[in-house]
Amino acid sequence: MRAAYYAGKETIHVGDCVPEAPGAGQVQIRVSHCGICGTDLHVWHGHMDHRVKTPQVIGHEMSGTIEAVGEGVSGWSAGDRVTVMPLDPCGECAACKAGHGHVCMKLKFIGIDVPGALQTLWTVPAHTLHRIPDSLTLEHAALIEPVAVACHDVRLGEVKAGEYAVVLGGGPIGTLVALVAKQAGARVLVSEVNPFRIELARKLGLDVVDPKEIDLIQHVWAETGGTGADVVFEVTGNAASAEVMTELPRVRGRIVIVGVFAKPVPVNLHKFFWRELKLCGARVYEHQDFEKAIELAASRALPFDGLITDVYALDRLGEGLQQMEKGGAVMKILVECK
Amino acid sequence: MRAAYYAGKETIHVGDCVPEAPGAGQVQIRVSHCGICGTDLHVWHGHMDHRVKTPQVIGHEMSGTIEAVGEGVSGWSAGDRVTVMPLDPCGECAACKAGHGHVCMKLKFIGIDVPGALQTLWTVPAHTLHRIPDSLTLEHAALIEPVAVACHDVRLGEVKAGEYAVVLGGGPIGTLVALVAKQAGARVLVSEVNPFRIELARKLGLDVVDPKEIDLIQHVWAETGGTGADVVFEVTGNAASAEVMTELPRVRGRIVIVGVFAKPVPVNLHKFFWRELKLCGARVYEHQDFEKAIELAASRALPFDGLITDVYALDRLGEGLQQMEKGGAVMKILVECK
Repeated sequence: MRAAYYAGKETIHVGDCVPEAPGAGQVQIRVSHCGICGTDLHVWHGHMDHRVKTPQVIGHEMSGTIEAVGEGVSGWSAGDRVTVMPLDPCGECAACKAGHGHVCMKLKFIGIDVPGALQTLWTVPAHTLHRIPDSLTLEHAALIEPVAVACHDVRLGEVKAGEYAVVLGGGPIGTLVALVAKQAGARVLVSEVNPFRIELARKLGLDVVDPKEIDLIQHVWAETGGTGADVVFEVTGNAASAEVMTELPRVRGRIVIVGVFAKPVPVNLHKFFWRELKLCGARVYEHQDFEKAIELAASRALPFDGLITDVYALDRLGEGLQQMEKGGAVMKILVECK
Repeated sequence: MRAAYYAGKETIHVGDCVPEAPGAGQVQIRVSHCGICGTDLHVWHGHMDHRVKTPQVIGHEMSGTIEAVGEGVSGWSAGDRVTVMPLDPCGECAACKAGHGHVCMKLKFIGIDVPGALQTLWTVPAHTLHRIPDSLTLEHAALIEPVAVACHDVRLGEVKAGEYAVVLGGGPIGTLVALVAKQAGARVLVSEVNPFRIELARKLGLDVVDPKEIDLIQHVWAETGGTGADVVFEVTGNAASAEVMTELPRVRGRIVIVGVFAKPVPVNLHKFFWRELKLCGARVYEHQDFEKAIELAASRALPFDGLITDVYALDRLGEGLQQMEKGGAVMKILVECK
């Protein structure tokens, strides 16, 4: 079998490895496809060297088929088609005890803190498994993890049918947030500056504007008849977006922080006071978000083919990372691990 | 009759005036007491000259007795003891139509945008009235308005019995937020730097620390057994407090913005993402907050005598403003308007 290892700043080694037999409570999965996530790019850049041991197998947006089942695992058998919610909470901390294991204070993220999915055979705890319906291809099923992120964001954003939602940032997660919010019945506007992504999102049926070409604030207030947006998703992690995000919501409107901010940025807290705005952070997902993502995917409500811009063989993971780094004509890249 | 006018930057004139007869839907009140609010101080400094016409009667934290009732007003009679919720929403904007008239997009705040309570006879819309129970003195009833602010903040902060709440800033509003949160069954910690206010809040039975003397973040995490605070009230409006506010809450903890921030300040949005924190702004009050404030006041649950540090005659309003400006040994100052 083969595995792709992060071996230090901007270095990927793909080589042979010995499969890990599933222990008690674990399953071993023959990985089919694994998407490359922005987080993988951060790891590759060495930004997460404080967490990632080297060499480390990375990757966590995957689909596959169970190869072997460890002791004490019930409900799962060899041959089952699955995806993995790659979170391993401690079960002991205050967050876990309060039922928020997905933001466990000692969370192990599988694919960052422990070995990930970019390998032929991957062993994970059985509690991470979700079943892939027959109607869904394994290629498409590798997108369930990022769709689950979007489902979590839209759920925490409390999006209701008929509401007006603005998504700041039309990368893979922003585009999925927009698509999931639209499925929830919202009118959705995406703000994005990359021409390829603008074009792609439009092809997917989304309403997209370039904030360098139009006045986004005026546009949103005009589109909502002077009321303001019901909900704004911040999916860029940049300061300019944090400045605009407080200008868009209606009185008592909501802002959801999805983007990763490298450092504190100026925020207009007075606007929160004046309009009684609400803000919440939304990180990863919970099991119910995976179930919702699978339901949406299986119902063919999401245009997966349009989102997948490339599929690479495992040996060419490095090229995929470089392509993502370069930007431009790229949305979701999958890696075939077979 | 007499009235106190704001006549331009740091200038108050107290003089005779002609009472305004109550029109349709209005009542005329013989004002008993009126508290001086931080907002009155802002007006006095000229910071709100874009809103306040001169000369303008200011003041809005009041108690009094109905003197006369205008046409079409039912349920109110001369002699009724009342306080006023000093908000006059337009009734037409999106916020009003959504039931959030207290943050109406064209809100008239009575005592800023239109004449206020620092006069012998004050005419206001009848919809602003709340009845003062017999068990409450008119002096104490002048504190219902700021208590209603605190009730609104604690309600929007969703404070539950047994929770741990931190109040950043122990001025009049911060102290009232702490007292109301304590009444709701929370364990409450106040963070304040003014020695007089620290001492006063301790006399009122509150747990208070000076963040210049101890490490507030360490203290809160130790006090909560490594869990973090359930809710944090930001009542200072300053940047240092905005920096600390995101360090205190537990996973999925809440932050309520009560303080007025003059400009955008750096905020650690990554902390919102990482711990799935929530933040909301809380401005003024709704009728239910006035009812709750009256209920708390009438039940003698709040130590009003300890909060009132001075009572001035109307002619000496200027001195009261100067004393508030000086700071130090001052909490709530009342003005007797009789």
